[in-house]
Amino acid sequence: MTDITQIRAAAERGRGHLRRTPLLSSPFLDEIAGRRVLVKAECLQHTGSFKFRGAWSALSALSPEVRARGVIAYSSGNHAQGVALAAKLHGTSAVIVMPKDAPALKIANTRAYGAEVVLYDRAGEDRDAIGQEIATRRGLTLIRPYDEPMVIAGQGTSGLEIAEQAAEAGVTRADVLIPCGGGGLSAGVALALEAVAPGLRVRPCEPQNYDDTARSLRAGERLSNATMATSLCDAIVTPMPGQITFPVQQRLSGPGLVVTEEDVLRAMALAFQRLKIIIEPGGAVGLAAALFHGAEIAGEAVICIASGGNVDPEIFLRALQLPES
Amino acid sequence: MTDITQIRAAAERGRGHLRRTPLLSSPFLDEIAGRRVLVKAECLQHTGSFKFRGAWSALSALSPEVRARGVIAYSSGNHAQGVALAAKLHGTSAVIVMPKDAPALKIANTRAYGAEVVLYDRAGEDRDAIGQEIATRRGLTLIRPYDEPMVIAGQGTSGLEIAEQAAEAGVTRADVLIPCGGGGLSAGVALALEAVAPGLRVRPCEPQNYDDTARSLRAGERLSNATMATSLCDAIVTPMPGQITFPVQQRLSGPGLVVTEEDVLRAMALAFQRLKIIIEPGGAVGLAAALFHGAEIAGEAVICIASGGNVDPEIFLRALQLPES
Repeated sequence: MTDITQIRAAAERGRGHLRRTPLLSSPFLDEIAGRRVLVKAECLQHTGSFKFRGAWSALSALSPEVRARGVIAYSSGNHAQGVALAAKLHGTSAVIVMPKDAPALKIANTRAYGAEVVLYDRAGEDRDAIGQEIATRRGLTLIRPYDEPMVIAGQGTSGLEIAEQAAEAGVTRADVLIPCGGGGLSAGVALALEAVAPGLRVRPCEPQNYDDTARSLRAGERLSNATMATSLCDAIVTPMPGQITFPVQQRLSGPGLVVTEEDVLRAMALAFQRLKIIIEPGGAVGLAAALFHGAEIAGEAVICIASGGNVDPEIFLRALQLPES
Repeated sequence: MTDITQIRAAAERGRGHLRRTPLLSSPFLDEIAGRRVLVKAECLQHTGSFKFRGAWSALSALSPEVRARGVIAYSSGNHAQGVALAAKLHGTSAVIVMPKDAPALKIANTRAYGAEVVLYDRAGEDRDAIGQEIATRRGLTLIRPYDEPMVIAGQGTSGLEIAEQAAEAGVTRADVLIPCGGGGLSAGVALALEAVAPGLRVRPCEPQNYDDTARSLRAGERLSNATMATSLCDAIVTPMPGQITFPVQQRLSGPGLVVTEEDVLRAMALAFQRLKIIIEPGGAVGLAAALFHGAEIAGEAVICIASGGNVDPEIFLRALQLPES
């Protein structure tokens, strides 16, 4: 299991390579939320999402010999870009298995970072099986998107930064709202905060109809989503909570929060107007919960992670063209 | 005159109040520019532009008695918001003289920060005269947007950060492309860099038809713009270079760079796609020059300041809807 020592080691390996993303705020958002809102802008991380942290951690932890043979990953897009760039910067090759319906921008970027892209059908095929088969046949190391201790350690580095930045802002007790797919970011940040900022508690956030983590936390066991159809929040749609990540979430997380697609689009528009950052739908569920689900949150301040910014312009236009409410 | 001691003092007074904005980059932008491009994201500063630095510096330098009587400023928008928020945070009042045709968002924000807004006609009235008259009548301190040593010192704090962040990125020799209106940011950053990073040289950037600084630098004297009609780049349209700022630019700046409105919109779209930040047109002229005027720049790296992000959605949509080129 990942622990704080591994998270600190991942931060050390990432020094000079990971970007320390800012913790942003706006009095206008505070007013909407009814409390201070601090936004960790992971959309400003290299490749436009926190996933670069986990990818860098995993690649940098491999022995030079194993790394030189190349890596493989499957991803709806952000893990893909993270692994592709981390592989390129380590001078090795990457194969990325991506769903055919992933945002065009993410597929194009993954190729542009030098990776070989293999497309699959999200509805009918099992990406884990495809990934394992190619890995075995070609001698590549499979880097799973969340059920992978070194990836979780890498995501946890964001938690170390949050603890420091929140303390600088005078916040030591607050919920930390985290967009949650497989739970790698939530688990990594929760493990980091447990060790360095125990007054900060992770709460996973999900879009309606894809709230497997919130339901699983209530039920005390891993439950699946009823649908895997395409969601506006594609980046955080996974079949069910991770095998490694879920026990961490059970032990350390507060209740899940669930938001609507309209909440998400409004949060994206407010991030445009007030923070000057681009958040993709899946990356905006935490901010959406902070702004529009305040009754389910306690305390004078709330922290949320804006976990990614890789959104096609057409979707972003939908957010900007919402009527003022 | 402003000197490095005053800039360092402004940074000290701003500790815990000014946001240290990140220096961003993307391999995709490097490829377009043909060299490394480092982007100082001042659009992420409080109030969405670097102007908060100068406003905080000026307000915090006043004696408590003078400050308590209130301040007044004139501005097309970003200085307005900076002074309004800095006044509010210092517990004093602000009157802001703004052009009637300033972006709706900037006028609304200035009022929302608690300031009293007085509108004037950009074509027919002299904002300096209006500001001075109200200041005298009501006993307020006028905080000029650029011809004001404490404001220039505040803007210079961005230069101190650039010097440190560029050195961390391994860049010690480069041009620093800065959106230029009255020249407060260019002058402040140039004075900071002269002292702490002499290998970095400021080059002011302007939109076509509003290139008073570029022409003035060539002519060796302050020249006016032929027109003061509304520009896409409203934030950096001023009648002519500043009285205090221009001699600094003459001594320290390289030649000015001039970009088209289409360059600006394309730079905004690329910042959306590759950096995940919102840049307003006037704030994007430096990035536009870095990306599309590379032949006028030397060196293996270039730094540019994205000076503000306060753009109405309608204008931003124009950038996103540009045909791919």
